[in-house]
This record gives sequence, C-alpha cells and structure tokens, in this order.
Amino acid sequence: MEKISVHASGDYDVLIEKGLLAKCGKEIANTVKSRKTVIISDDIVERHYGHALRKTLRANGFTVSTFVFMNGEKQKCLSTLSDIYDFMSEKDLTRSDSVIALGGGVVGDIAGFAAATYLRGIDYVQIPTTLLAAVDSSVGGKTAIDLDSGKNLVGAFKQPVLVVCDPLTLDTLSPKNFSDGMGEVIKYGMIKDADLFETLEKNNSITIKEIIPDIIKRCVEIKRDVVEADEKENSLRMILNFGHTIGHAIENYYNYETYTHGSAVAIGMCEMSKKTASPDISKRLEKVCMNYNLPIKCDAEMKNLLPLCRHDKKNRDGKINFITCETIGKAEIKKLDFTDFDKLMTGSDTTDKQEG
Amino acid sequence: MEKISVHASGDYDVLIEKGLLAKCGKEIANTVKSRKTVIISDDIVERHYGHALRKTLRANGFTVSTFVFMNGEKQKCLSTLSDIYDFMSEKDLTRSDSVIALGGGVVGDIAGFAAATYLRGIDYVQIPTTLLAAVDSSVGGKTAIDLDSGKNLVGAFKQPVLVVCDPLTLDTLSPKNFSDGMGEVIKYGMIKDADLFETLEKNNSITIKEIIPDIIKRCVEIKRDVVEADEKENSLRMILNFGHTIGHAIENYYNYETYTHGSAVAIGMCEMSKKTASPDISKRLEKVCMNYNLPIKCDAEMKNLLPLCRHDKKNRDGKINFITCETIGKAEIKKLDFTDFDKLMTGSDTTDKQEG
Repeated sequence: MEKISVHASGDYDVLIEKGLLAKCGKEIANTVKSRKTVIISDDIVERHYGHALRKTLRANGFTVSTFVFMNGEKQKCLSTLSDIYDFMSEKDLTRSDSVIALGGGVVGDIAGFAAATYLRGIDYVQIPTTLLAAVDSSVGGKTAIDLDSGKNLVGAFKQPVLVVCDPLTLDTLSPKNFSDGMGEVIKYGMIKDADLFETLEKNNSITIKEIIPDIIKRCVEIKRDVVEADEKENSLRMILNFGHTIGHAIENYYNYETYTHGSAVAIGMCEMSKKTASPDISKRLEKVCMNYNLPIKCDAEMKNLLPLCRHDKKNRDGKINFITCETIGKAEIKKLDFTDFDKLMTGSDTTDKQEG
Repeated sequence: MEKISVHASGDYDVLIEKGLLAKCGKEIANTVKSRKTVIISDDIVERHYGHALRKTLRANGFTVSTFVFMNGEKQKCLSTLSDIYDFMSEKDLTRSDSVIALGGGVVGDIAGFAAATYLRGIDYVQIPTTLLAAVDSSVGGKTAIDLDSGKNLVGAFKQPVLVVCDPLTLDTLSPKNFSDGMGEVIKYGMIKDADLFETLEKNNSITIKEIIPDIIKRCVEIKRDVVEADEKENSLRMILNFGHTIGHAIENYYNYETYTHGSAVAIGMCEMSKKTASPDISKRLEKVCMNYNLPIKCDAEMKNLLPLCRHDKKNRDGKINFITCETIGKAEIKKLDFTDFDKLMTGSDTTDKQEG
C-alpha cells in the first residue's frame, strides 16, 4: 500500500492500493472518532461499491446509513445539499460521527461541503472512484456546490481525515470518464513534472492503465506539495488552475452537458498554450491530449467564452488570474485586466505581452 | 470609543461607541480589502439604519448594494441563504469584496454563514443592532442557519473582520427585545463575573440603560477571553451554553414563537440552577431575571422538553454536555448519559450526583 501524508490545516493520509475499498473499514476505524457514519454516494457508484464498503465498515463495528442521489453535476446543488442535511439530522449524526464520500468529484465536493458545515464541521473520508477524483478533487480540502450562476461558487476549505484510493474502481469507468481524469493528469505534468509529461507522451489510454497507481501517486504528491504550501489559494495553489479559466467557461457555455471537466480543461490548456507558449510546446500538449482521447478545441468562439471567464471566482479587483506554462513542468501565475485578457485570447499569435 | 481586540483564527476589533453607526464607513474602509460591499439586513432594521450606513459607506468610497429579507428567526433557513447567494453572485462579489451584517442575531448568523461559504469565504463585518447580538452573536465567529429539525444545525466558524457596535441602536428596540439580550448578559455574570452579576442585581431594565455601553464592553471581554482560549468549542467555550440546553429545547417546543432566545435561556438557567445550585443562588438568579422582565419558568413540562435536549448539537456519544453554576461567577462543564440527565432534571431536589 502506498501512503502519502498531507500536512495542511488537518493532517491526513492518502492510501492507494488495488482492492483497498473492500477492506478499508479498518483504516477508517483507526481514523474517525466514533463508529457511526453516513456514506454519501450517487446511484451508479453505490450500485458498484456500496455493498462492499458497508460490509467492511460493519465488520469493523460501524453503524452505517447510506444517502444516495442521482449521478451528475446537476445534482451538486443546494437542493441535494438540503436533502443531505436532513438525512444527517434524521440519523442524529453528532460532532463525533463522520461522513464517507464514495464516488467521483461531484460526490466528494458536495459530501465534503455537507461535512464542513453540518454542526459547523464533522469528519469526512474521501473514497474517490474516478480518476479525476483520485488525482484531484479528493485531496486538498476544496469542497463546494454549484449555483445556477456558476460552478463551485459556494464552498469551504475542509480537509478530509483520510483518503482511500482503490485503483480497481477505475475498471468500471467508461473510456470517456477515464479520459476526463487524464485531463488533470496531463495538467500536473505541464505545471510541475516534465518526467510525468514525458511518460504520458510515451503511453496512451490503454497502456497507461498498467501504471495507473504510480501515476495517481505522483499526481497526489504534486497536489500535496502545492496544498501544503498554500492551502487557501492565496498564490501558489492557483497553478492547479492551469487550463481552468477557459475550461470553466467551456463547461458553462455548453451547460455542463457536452464536455466533462477534464475535457474542458484539456481544451483550456491547449487554447492557453497556443497564446502563451511556443508552437513546439503547444503541439506536444495537443498530441498528448489526443493520446488520451481528449479534445483540443471546441466549436464555441473565444469571444463568446471570454465573458464567462469574468465570472470565474479567481477574479479579483476586476482582473483575471490565469496560469501559463511556457516550459513543460513549470507554471506561472499571471494577472490581466479583463480587456487585456480578451485581447490576449483573441489575438492571432503567441504573445508575451501580459504582465507578470 | 471603546476598542476590544480579539485574537482568534482571525484578528479583529470590536468597536463600541454611541453614534458609531453613522460614521463607521471610515473604520470599515480601513479594514476590508476592496470598496465593494453588500449589506445584508432585515426589513425592520434596514428601515431604521440602512440609509445612515449606506451614506457613511458611500462617503468613504464604497459601492454598496443591500439585500433585505423579512425579520424573524423563521428566515434563518436554506431558502433565504439561497437568495443571498444569488444576490452576491448577481452583484459579482469577488474574494476581495465584503459583506456587512446589519441587524440582530438572525441577520448576523445567516450573513456570516453566507460570507463563510460564498467563494469559500469572503470578509464580513458585524454591525449588531440588538443587545443580544452586541453581547453574544456578533463576536466569536459562530455563524449558522437552522434546519426544520433544529436550530443552528448547519454553520461555520468564521470570525468577522470588524464588529461595529453602536449602543444608540438599542433605543429602537422593544422592551421585549431588550430583555432578550439581558438574558445573555445575566449568563455572563453567572458563568464568569460575580461583580457584573451584582451590578445587574442593583439595577433594573430602566436604570441599566445608563451604563449599557460598559455592560456590553464587559460581556464582549468575557466572550473574547473564552473564544481566544477555545475558538472551536472543544471544551471551555461550552460554558457560554449555560442555560442553553434547556433553553434551546424550550424555543424548539414552542416552535420559536413564544419565547425569544434570551427568555428561553433565562428559563433554562433557572431550571438548571434549581437542580444543581443552592436554593440561595437559584433565588438570586430568579430575582435578577425578574428585574429585567425575563421569565423564570414556562408551562411546558420538563418530561416533554428532555427529548428535545437530545437533539442539541452539543451531544456527543449519546451523552449530554451541559453547564452548571454552583457559585456565581464560575461555570462547570458536566456530561451525563441521556437517562441520567433526564433523572437529574426531573428529580425533585437539588442534587450533586452528576459526574464531573
């Protein structure tokens, strides 16, 4: 079993092992305060893994209830959150009890936010079952729900007490869902690790699966290092948003239906690189995205995406914060006025006119 | 102007001065990051003070919008919160901008929770306009909303960046609302300050108004000391809940309509003292409550209140945490099994059988 320790506002371990889900009751029992817990999951994930998780929890003395909601980003809203609160209250969860988020990013985000706010905060465990959640959303303590007006506009910083990652759960992912996660994996290579990027260049969506536990481990280590340095995203943590300024706008433009998060981030990274990196780097990035069946552009015109970028919550003082990678493995935080950012993104050439 | 500095997870000042509301724009400008803010208030408070507050804010360069909801505890719910989020989003509030809570405990709690969670947290300023909010809810960073199943079941610890207390605002309070706050003032005397308690004994609801700025200052200092020692309510902070275990049950039993928070706390303190303190202390407490037109008992039978105590969020591991004051000015944290607590509260005599 691989163990990565995270030391942020809360200290916790990320455990990675094939087959871990069916036996994680012991590790969870060693971490949480009480033997009463609520699993929060979506209908698809619960069907696959709910039974095995409850079995190992009960074998370790837990009283378990399960709250299930319909799969999909549309459910990451105040209405589902309200139902979760009512369920937690009905089950008389106290401050000693815990929540277990079993699923992908949507489940982890909303269950984490419920745990962050119910009784002003109770413990929660992340069990990511998608590649995206394993490498990104289950680590670092960002929890959130969406509003009609934007993604993740409401949330809290709340570190989990444990992350249980079982790479076997990725076997039930659709190819599209697996590619979704690879969008974020590529991002880690771009912002922090040229070796990881080269490994991704040498593989494709089939061959990468043989080394996926190592890939997850490397991504979690990178995220851990960034989060430990800047948990609240005052500066360094922003580099994790490479590709996300345009990516979020694309998700929004297509009403969160056409492009998965990772696909939108892939397009966002490619668009940003075309404007800010050398043609060579831009081409390598596009090629590696294609290796993993990720899109490198979309039909939406940039001029229609840019107004949506302004609503991204990284904006401060009427300026847009965004990330560039002019060298593979190295990210930079940039800031521009709205109009200058628009010029940069609609200009025809690679440019380095933006301010540092 | 009196200034009390609080050093918790956030550092901030509590400013107390008659007439401060109409000129606080300068102090707020010196504290928050941007010149864009949203005032959150209820219809009654906004009618009294909204104009003066906007005027001093605009004179100090602020762009101000105001969100107003209907006065009343019933509004401290997810539905109002959802409207507040939509308003903040519509006004394009960014992480640099701020929220100003103008009102009593309901306004402060829900506006504080909105600020704690919108964009994962933005700055907020508390401007308490009731005695209860001035001495209690505006200091210490507890923010919350109610669920149908219980009061304050969802919330966050989030310290304000500034508290602006203008005792002149208390002049527009109804006598009942003023007494509501005196319930908490008496609590501070009971748990921490025999001198304060004696001052309360020597005064009544008319004469106390002459020294109310000093009274507020003393209460805030006590709360500050407690919060600095134990912000997250792991132990010491629980003493602030003297009278609240039964008090919350009373509020709940009467559907939050018959008794104000402070009135319910007064009854809760008196009931607890009858069971755990000497007859002399119990009588003195009852008398001081009557000085300020507070009730000392209610029609609800204890056996009907006790099941509601079990749902209080201070319960951990099937036990009830509660506070006793066997000496005026000194509180103790006690813990009992549900059944033993029931026995204590329904027993006919003062007893000291409970565990420490």
